[in-house]
Amino acid sequence: MSKIDENINFKPPSGFDIEFLPAEKRLEQYLIDTMRNVFEQYGYTPIETPAVERLEVLQAKGNQGDNIIYSISPIVSEDGDKDSDRRGLKFDQTVPLAAYIARHLNDLSFPFARYQMDMVFRGERAKKGRYRQFRQCDIDVVGRGKLSLLYDAQIPAIIAQIFDAINIGKYLIRINNRKVLTGFFSAIAITPEQIRTCLKVVDMLDKIGEAKVKLELEKQGVSGSQAEQIIGFTKIKGDNNAVLEQLAQVSQALGNPTDFEQGISELREVINGVIALGVPTDKYCIDLAIARGLEYYTGTVYETTLIGYESLGSICSGGRYEELVGIFVGEKMPGVGISIGLTRLLRQLMDAKVLKPLAPSPAQVMVLNLNPEFMNTYLQVSQTLRQAGINVLTSFESRPIGKQFQQADKLGIPLCVIIGEAEVKSKTCNLKNLKTGIQKAIALDDLVAEILAEIALKH
Amino acid sequence: MSKIDENINFKPPSGFDIEFLPAEKRLEQYLIDTMRNVFEQYGYTPIETPAVERLEVLQAKGNQGDNIIYSISPIVSEDGDKDSDRRGLKFDQTVPLAAYIARHLNDLSFPFARYQMDMVFRGERAKKGRYRQFRQCDIDVVGRGKLSLLYDAQIPAIIAQIFDAINIGKYLIRINNRKVLTGFFSAIAITPEQIRTCLKVVDMLDKIGEAKVKLELEKQGVSGSQAEQIIGFTKIKGDNNAVLEQLAQVSQALGNPTDFEQGISELREVINGVIALGVPTDKYCIDLAIARGLEYYTGTVYETTLIGYESLGSICSGGRYEELVGIFVGEKMPGVGISIGLTRLLRQLMDAKVLKPLAPSPAQVMVLNLNPEFMNTYLQVSQTLRQAGINVLTSFESRPIGKQFQQADKLGIPLCVIIGEAEVKSKTCNLKNLKTGIQKAIALDDLVAEILAEIALKH
Repeated sequence: MSKIDENINFKPPSGFDIEFLPAEKRLEQYLIDTMRNVFEQYGYTPIETPAVERLEVLQAKGNQGDNIIYSISPIVSEDGDKDSDRRGLKFDQTVPLAAYIARHLNDLSFPFARYQMDMVFRGERAKKGRYRQFRQCDIDVVGRGKLSLLYDAQIPAIIAQIFDAINIGKYLIRINNRKVLTGFFSAIAITPEQIRTCLKVVDMLDKIGEAKVKLELEKQGVSGSQAEQIIGFTKIKGDNNAVLEQLAQVSQALGNPTDFEQGISELREVINGVIALGVPTDKYCIDLAIARGLEYYTGTVYETTLIGYESLGSICSGGRYEELVGIFVGEKMPGVGISIGLTRLLRQLMDAKVLKPLAPSPAQVMVLNLNPEFMNTYLQVSQTLRQAGINVLTSFESRPIGKQFQQADKLGIPLCVIIGEAEVKSKTCNLKNLKTGIQKAIALDDLVAEILAEIALKH
Repeated sequence: MSKIDENINFKPPSGFDIEFLPAEKRLEQYLIDTMRNVFEQYGYTPIETPAVERLEVLQAKGNQGDNIIYSISPIVSEDGDKDSDRRGLKFDQTVPLAAYIARHLNDLSFPFARYQMDMVFRGERAKKGRYRQFRQCDIDVVGRGKLSLLYDAQIPAIIAQIFDAINIGKYLIRINNRKVLTGFFSAIAITPEQIRTCLKVVDMLDKIGEAKVKLELEKQGVSGSQAEQIIGFTKIKGDNNAVLEQLAQVSQALGNPTDFEQGISELREVINGVIALGVPTDKYCIDLAIARGLEYYTGTVYETTLIGYESLGSICSGGRYEELVGIFVGEKMPGVGISIGLTRLLRQLMDAKVLKPLAPSPAQVMVLNLNPEFMNTYLQVSQTLRQAGINVLTSFESRPIGKQFQQADKLGIPLCVIIGEAEVKSKTCNLKNLKTGIQKAIALDDLVAEILAEIALKH
């Protein structure tokens, strides 16, 4: 057989080179399963929205997404397709959540806690580590009218449980409250117009450093002394009690301004909840330098840093918002949530050797083919193992036994079942563990128990 | 808060109304997990390819997909995006599989057995039950140069295991071999040019019936007697041995033509494998009327009918092909696989009440909020349960207890933990089973064991 056309470029389009090898995809699947498991332990339910939404929906928050939205249209135009050019691919999970809630308002129960782990699309300029399609894993809980701050407190517990389960190493969940920042900014006479940009500049502290932040703040019309106050404020450090205590002192010195007090009170309530949920104190802290770039956050904000890999930036971020998911319903619907850009994060963690791909094959056992005459035995043994929940690859090809071991090894299959003429007669088999090299003769009747024991030993 | 704009239409675009309510999505997730589990028991490994491929890749099999391919382009054109209009959304999982194999040829081990369960996109005219985006669940195993027919035999075992696991009711896997049909057609002097269209016409037997098939065949230039022979051939019935025996007789009567004999021999080998794999004989049969519409099948073909719901058509179909996935590599790469259009099938099965949505919430327990003063206890009890792997929704809102029971009921949460002042003092709680109405007083120390027992009872 010859190629269809020598000149076809079968590589993915630029920015869409997101596909994993089987061993990597199995790791991604393991992470997805782990996250699902934790999300469901906290009562979050799965949803999935279409990849394609009306442009008017995608653009509902203003035209901020316009430079990253892809529209879709049939390559051969068809009369019946009147929606052409008025549809686009979703670029985040938040606007679709707002649409989902509006579409199913009467079928949902509030507070509505959902997770969502499908693909989003962004027509950004392609560069290394930036993808035009990626899996975005979000959880959000949305209330009608109000939403307890304890939902904010659960978020660090959820993040910690996930990162502990996947053995990612040391990490730090950094918690702040937008009202603490904006309340302080107001109190030192930063104008309402300057506050937005001040938040964005403070958000860059980690990336550009103090000196540049000061310059940037001054560019926004903030005075040198105000800029120094802001930078000094973001540097308040200590354990949670110490930081809350210092915030109380700052507030008192400023005459206990309402917004600032509100922020401190919310932050205290969230931290108390995190403590009550038993999250170990070395996993989280209050960090007054966390601002988050996105405009819609109004209260609690989170970032998560992987210790020793700070250059990756925040690996899990989010916060509370008031005016976001109610936009299509026309009600106040406060929410709080976090987001993990899984495709990029997984590629980074594998590149940094923080996480290692799994075995390329899910099979735990390979039943070798020593002689095609015994194939019925091989098939029956394979089915018996499968009925016990064991993943089995039966070797159908007639290949030298050495080649079959090689294949099992290449696929990461730890156990091989070897049945030749003598074994068929005696209703036994040889079970070889490719990792230890140990081979045992076993009665076929004992094979399931023996394999289950070998698999359990691995953990 | 007011709506952003009264006039925004937040419904999904036509053909993209694929999203499920939480209870339905949880059922889909259960089906996906069940399928994954079975696929992995047979050693199939997961992959996922990008939604977006180069048009030259999507069109590589000829321009047959042109009338269903969506192209994507940024709504605001950007200099850096040179691929605009040369990319499209994938419309099946097969062409992307061919591209995936070409892209990773040296990293894969052959035979390469993979499953894939992500979304495909088809710009077809929208009509009821036809979606423009849907989840297509495919498995395929691909060899280099050759591929054992035992892979074909495993397919019915996999289908049966899945449909038995999800309790879908009675079904019948109908098996045939394209070479049996084409070999027979040749032997009765159907010309090579007519064979393709004859296959397509025979494929419509179920839908349009014998009389129309005869007319259609005659339109293709097939003589009345040939048409009768074809229809008579597809009606050969009986158990597998009887059908194979009759095929042998027909072949002998026709002088044992090579292609026909080859088809019969392949079909016999596949059926023998299915028997050896222990698939119950009432789950499958040889059906000589199965042809499959797609041109690329060259050997075994499958369709699956849900008994009592024949109008749904085949709910799981596939077959063997020789000239498909090697197109970008330029090697012979025979494969065999099946496909389930999950989005449509699930909607149909729910509409027909064959499958019922799960509970809207994954939570198994709701910890009620009787008094916010005891919230720390509620949080700690919730965490203890979660550490035992139990899914818990903690009630944060201060609502009357009746409302909280109502919410648990609406979310399908079977158990409620009730802790008031007396219980806090005595370190006990009340555990109420909403299904039985039975409420028990339990020491907090015994709560995990009691709940695990209650959950186990459900199964």
